[in-house]
Formats: sequence, structure tokens, C-alpha cells
Amino acid sequence: MRSSIPRFSLDPGLAASTQEMARLGLSDLRLMDDARFPWVLLIPRKADATEIVDLGTIDQSRLIAEISMVSKAMKAATNCDKLNVAAIGNMVAQLHIHVVARFKGDAAWPKPVWGFGAPVAYPAPERDKLVARLLAALPS
Amino acid sequence: MRSSIPRFSLDPGLAASTQEMARLGLSDLRLMDDARFPWVLLIPRKADATEIVDLGTIDQSRLIAEISMVSKAMKAATNCDKLNVAAIGNMVAQLHIHVVARFKGDAAWPKPVWGFGAPVAYPAPERDKLVARLLAALPS
Repeated sequence: MRSSIPRFSLDPGLAASTQEMARLGLSDLRLMDDARFPWVLLIPRKADATEIVDLGTIDQSRLIAEISMVSKAMKAATNCDKLNVAAIGNMVAQLHIHVVARFKGDAAWPKPVWGFGAPVAYPAPERDKLVARLLAALPS
Repeated sequence: MRSSIPRFSLDPGLAASTQEMARLGLSDLRLMDDARFPWVLLIPRKADATEIVDLGTIDQSRLIAEISMVSKAMKAATNCDKLNVAAIGNMVAQLHIHVVARFKGDAAWPKPVWGFGAPVAYPAPERDKLVARLLAALPS
């Protein structure tokens, strides 16, 4: 018997602009390839979800727990001044939550990062170092 | 005996740019005085909170439940194309969560609203009508 549950698959645009970091309970955690800001995405593996309210209440609780866990790791790994957390999705419909570590004096400060200038790809060693630091800061 | 628990008081900048709508279990719900976008703030009544992770896990669950409730009301009351939900706080430290109803073709679409142009104050009758519609869309 075929399943009628729609299958989640990562949006190709999100896949192209990010790198896999970890598979959490609800979401895929991916690093945005933009060396200007430590910036990750949480992408709940729920087909057709575009808004937080498209998740059931249990998944909403799991989402805020993952946002919290990742936020703490970002703070610990980067010593940032502020976190910016957002579900926007005006360009890419698939539900994704941004968690961005901000510094007073970073390229966009105090403006938001979305729509600000053009991304700057990481040199691979710098990206790998950040990913390792972030993963080490997540609870084991 | 004096309490040593710090008292919450609404940031004066947030107070000046918004209007009271409702007192929810955790947060004050306020309307941003910007007729360009249906835009509300949830402000958890927790002194000194600047990040979502400054809330305990129970309050985080209450927060996502209030975000969800308000998001549904915004969708129902405005029939918007997209919700934008964000905790940014680069300018005003006090924790506040934006819930913005977006329309394809609105003044900023598809860009985010933060830092986009200057707010346009509501004519009072239009503002009161929106507040009434939003409040009517919240669960009683």
C-alpha cells in the first residue's frame, strides 16, 4: 500500500545556499554560506509547511526547543552581542527559521541581515572551523 | 520584605511606536503604528529578557503558543499571503517578537519590513477597525 503522507524534501534553493550540519529531532540544521555572519537555518522536515502555524502544537514545542538549543550554541560558539531569530519565507516558501549571530559593528549592524548586500562565500577552512565549533557547542 | 525580583516595565520606545491591544498569559500584544503593514508585537512581561533563550523552557512553550495564536488571528483577520515572525532586537533590547502580515505587492514585498522606509501612522478609524478585527479573531 502506498503512503499518502507527502514526503519532505529540502528546497533546492535552500540546499544550494547552505551546508548540512546536523539532523535534529524535528529539523535539519544547516549553515548559511555567508562568511559575513554566523548564520544557520532550522528546517523542520515537514512536507508543505510554510508557516510555524502549519506545524502541530507538539512540533511547535519541538521547534522552540531546537531554536533555543541552537541559539545557546551560537552564543557559546561565537560570543555574539545579539541573536536574530526569524521565520520570513517571502522568497523561499519552505518553512525555515533563521538564527543569526550578530555583532555590534558587523557588516549590517544594526540592520537585519535579510536583503542586505550579497552573501560572501566562506573559505572552506573557515567554514569548517565554524561548523566544528557550533557542533561542539550543541548538547551531545 | 521587599521583593528582589526585577519588575517588568515596557520599554518607552516600544510603548511610543505601538498601541496596546491585549494582555495575553505571558506577553503584551501591541499593534505597531504603521499603516503599511498589519504588524503586531508580542512582548513577554519578563524583566531583563532580551533573547528568547532568556525565557525558561515553560515560558518558551507559552511564547510559541502565543505566537501561534496571534499568527492564526493575523491570517484570519487579514487574509495575508505570508506571515513574518521575528525576534531581532538590534535597536531595542527588550525582548519583543514581531508578527507581520505580508501581501504580495505590499510596500516592501518581498523584502522584510525591518529597516524598510519610514512608518506611516494609521488614521485612527482604520487602526481601530484593524484592532477590532484582530481581537475578534483571537480565541475568546
